[in-house]
Amino acid sequence: MATVEELKLRVRELENELIKCKQRQCAAEDAHNRPKIDKMSAEVVDSNPYSRLMALKRMGIVDDYEKIRTFSVAVVGVGGVGSVTAEMLTRCGIGKLLLFDYDKVELANMNRLFFQPHQAGLSKVEAAEHTLRNINPDVAFETHNYNITTLDNFTHFMDRISHGGLEEGETVDLVLSCVDNFEARMAINTACNELGQIWMESGVSENAVSGHIQLIMPGETACFACAPPLVVAANIDEKTLKREGVCAASLPTTMGVVAGLLVQNVLKYLLKFGTVSYYLGYNAMQDFFPTMTMKANPHCNDRHCRRQQEEYKKKEAERPKVEAVQEEEEEEAIVHEDNEWGIELVSEVTDAELQAASGVVPDLPEGITVAYTIPVEETAKGETVEETEVSLEDLMAQMRKL
Amino acid sequence: MATVEELKLRVRELENELIKCKQRQCAAEDAHNRPKIDKMSAEVVDSNPYSRLMALKRMGIVDDYEKIRTFSVAVVGVGGVGSVTAEMLTRCGIGKLLLFDYDKVELANMNRLFFQPHQAGLSKVEAAEHTLRNINPDVAFETHNYNITTLDNFTHFMDRISHGGLEEGETVDLVLSCVDNFEARMAINTACNELGQIWMESGVSENAVSGHIQLIMPGETACFACAPPLVVAANIDEKTLKREGVCAASLPTTMGVVAGLLVQNVLKYLLKFGTVSYYLGYNAMQDFFPTMTMKANPHCNDRHCRRQQEEYKKKEAERPKVEAVQEEEEEEAIVHEDNEWGIELVSEVTDAELQAASGVVPDLPEGITVAYTIPVEETAKGETVEETEVSLEDLMAQMRKL
Repeated sequence: MATVEELKLRVRELENELIKCKQRQCAAEDAHNRPKIDKMSAEVVDSNPYSRLMALKRMGIVDDYEKIRTFSVAVVGVGGVGSVTAEMLTRCGIGKLLLFDYDKVELANMNRLFFQPHQAGLSKVEAAEHTLRNINPDVAFETHNYNITTLDNFTHFMDRISHGGLEEGETVDLVLSCVDNFEARMAINTACNELGQIWMESGVSENAVSGHIQLIMPGETACFACAPPLVVAANIDEKTLKREGVCAASLPTTMGVVAGLLVQNVLKYLLKFGTVSYYLGYNAMQDFFPTMTMKANPHCNDRHCRRQQEEYKKKEAERPKVEAVQEEEEEEAIVHEDNEWGIELVSEVTDAELQAASGVVPDLPEGITVAYTIPVEETAKGETVEETEVSLEDLMAQMRKL
Repeated sequence: MATVEELKLRVRELENELIKCKQRQCAAEDAHNRPKIDKMSAEVVDSNPYSRLMALKRMGIVDDYEKIRTFSVAVVGVGGVGSVTAEMLTRCGIGKLLLFDYDKVELANMNRLFFQPHQAGLSKVEAAEHTLRNINPDVAFETHNYNITTLDNFTHFMDRISHGGLEEGETVDLVLSCVDNFEARMAINTACNELGQIWMESGVSENAVSGHIQLIMPGETACFACAPPLVVAANIDEKTLKREGVCAASLPTTMGVVAGLLVQNVLKYLLKFGTVSYYLGYNAMQDFFPTMTMKANPHCNDRHCRRQQEEYKKKEAERPKVEAVQEEEEEEAIVHEDNEWGIELVSEVTDAELQAASGVVPDLPEGITVAYTIPVEETAKGETVEETEVSLEDLMAQMRKL
C-alpha cells in the first residue's frame, strides 16, 4: 500500500503534467491569435500585416488606404464565392463584416477554397467567423445563421442592413450578394431597392465555367427585377437542378476568380481608384471578359425601384448646369435601342468586343442556362446582334411569367 | 494534514482530468483529417469531396475528370500566387504536388490568402504542406525548402522536374512559376528549355494592380529569354525595389485572380477542355484582359531554346501532309512583322482589341514597370501600333544588356 509521502509525490507529478497539458492547449489556441493593431502603419517590417496594403499609397494607387477601416460590408451567402470574398476583405482590413448564411459546412464543399474538412458539420457563418477572426482580429464581425428569404428573417435582414454599420445605427456601406439561387437574389434586390442601398451581385454558372459580378445602384442602374440576370437562375431551372442525386458542378478556380473580381470592384468603389465595373463577366472556356452597363427599367415590377428612379431623376435635374450639359452630350453619344420593356443596354465596349460577347446559345444539359454566349467568329455582325435581341426578349418573357 | 484516503481521491481526480485534457488534444488534431478516398466518385452526398468536380462530366465540360489524379505539377514559389495555386490544385484532387520555396511565413504576408498568423516563422513549404494535407490527404506532396537559383539546388531542381513525377523516375507534367523575381524565372526558363519541359509563368506587378499568366512550350512559343517578359522584372528594377524600408504593394484580390486564371489554364491544358491561353493579362484598374501568342525567337540567347526550336521544326515537318497544308494556310493568314530580333507577335485578338491592349506607358514611381499599358481610346490606330513596337525594342535592348 502507498504511503502518504508516495501519494503526495504522485499528486505533485499529476498536477505538473496537467498544467503542462493545459498549457499546450492554450498555446495551440493562442498561437492562432495576434494582438489587435490600433493604427495601420506603412512600416516595412516582417511583423506588420498591413505593410503591403499601405504600400498602395506610395505606389500611387490609393490615396488613403487607412479609410478601409471605416467601412462595413454585408456578405450574403458564405459559400464558394462568399467565403473567399469575406477572407479577402478580412485580410484587406475592412472595418466590419456582416455574414449571412443558413447552411452547414460539408465535405462536398471541399472542392472550393476556404473551408477545411475539420469544419464539416459547423454552420458556415460560425466556421467562417472563427477562421477570419484568427486571420485578422482587427475586423469586427456580426454573423446571422438564418435564411434571409423567410418573412421574419427578411425583416431582421433589412434592419441589420440599415443599422448594422460600423457604428450601431448606421447603414452598411455595401451589400454583396454571393448566393446561389434566384429567390435569395430577389430578396436582396427587394431590400436594397426599398432602402436605396448600393450592392453588388455575383454568380457562377451551374456548369462551373462562367461567372459575373454586377454593381447595382438603385434608381440608376438596372436592378435584378428590371432585367433578367445575365447569369440566369430562373425558378424553373433551379427546381430542375436541385432534384435528388443531381448537383451543379463547381471549381475553386472560377469561384476564386469571381471572388477576386468582386472584392477588387469593392476596393475600387470604396477607396476610389481605377474604374469601377458595372458588369464584368468571366467565360473560363475562352478567357473572355465582357463588360457592359444596364440602365434601370422605367416599367420595372418593383415599385421601390421605380420610386428610386424618380428620386434619381430629381437629383440629376438638380445637379449644376455645367455637369448637366456634359451628361447630355454623353447621353447622345450612346447608341441604344428602345424595346417594349424600356430597357436600354449601354455598352462600354467597342463594337468588335460587343459582337464577340454575343453568339448562339450552346447545347446544354437540361436545366442549365449560360452566363453569356461564346463568341462566334464566323458570324456576320447583323446576325449576331439579332441573336442578342431575341435572347433578351425571351428572357424578359420568362421573367414576366414568374 | 491530508489523510491517505483524501490523497487517493485527489490522485483519481487528477488522473481523470489529465485523461480528458489529453483526449481533447487528440480530438483537436484528429479532427483535421479525413480518410483517404481510393476512387473518385460522382455520387451526390454531402460527404463526397469530389461530387462537384465529377459533375463537370455530366455538365459536358470535361470528358474524364478522374484523370486529374494521374498528373503531377511542380509549383515554384509558394507566396501570394503559388500558395493559392497549390490549394486550388489540391482541392481539385491533383495526383502529386512538388513545392519549392526557401522563404518563411511572416505576418507581413497576411494581406494575401492562404497562410495564417499562427504559421509565422514556419518555412512556407512546411506550413503549406501541413495545411494542404489536411485539406486533401489524397494528394501526394514533395517539398523542397531551398533557393533553386544556387548551383547545387538548381541541379537538384532539374533532377526533381525530370524524375519527381507521380511514379518516381517519370517527369512532372507541368511546372508553374509563381516566383517574384527575374533570377528565379530565368532559372526555371533555363531548366525547362534544357529538359523540353512545358511550363506556365505567372506574375503580379509591384503596384499590385496587374498580373499575367503565360504558357511556354519550349521550341514552339517564346521562352523567357526569347523576349522580355510582359510583366518586366528586370534586374535593375528589382534591386531598386528591394532597398531597405521599401516594399512592393500586394492585394489578395489580384493574386487570387491570377492564381485562379493560372490553375484554370492548367486544368484546361491537362484535362483538355476549352481554349488554353498562351498569354492572358489582367489589368485591375480597367478590368481589361489582353491575350496574345508569341513565337519563339530564332536568335534566342538560350542555346537549348534554339535546339528545341530545331526539334520542333523537324517534328512539324514530319507531320502528315494534310495537316501540314492546313498549317501553311494558317501561317499565311497571320500578319506578322519581322524585326531584327526575329520575334513574331501573333495576336489572337481582333484589331480593335489589340489596339486597346497597347498605349502609352504611365508615369510610375521609381523602380516600377507596367505589366502592359492601359488602353488609349483617343489614339489613332497607327500611332498605337508604333508605341508597341518602340516599347518592344526598348525592352529587347534592356534584355541584351543583362
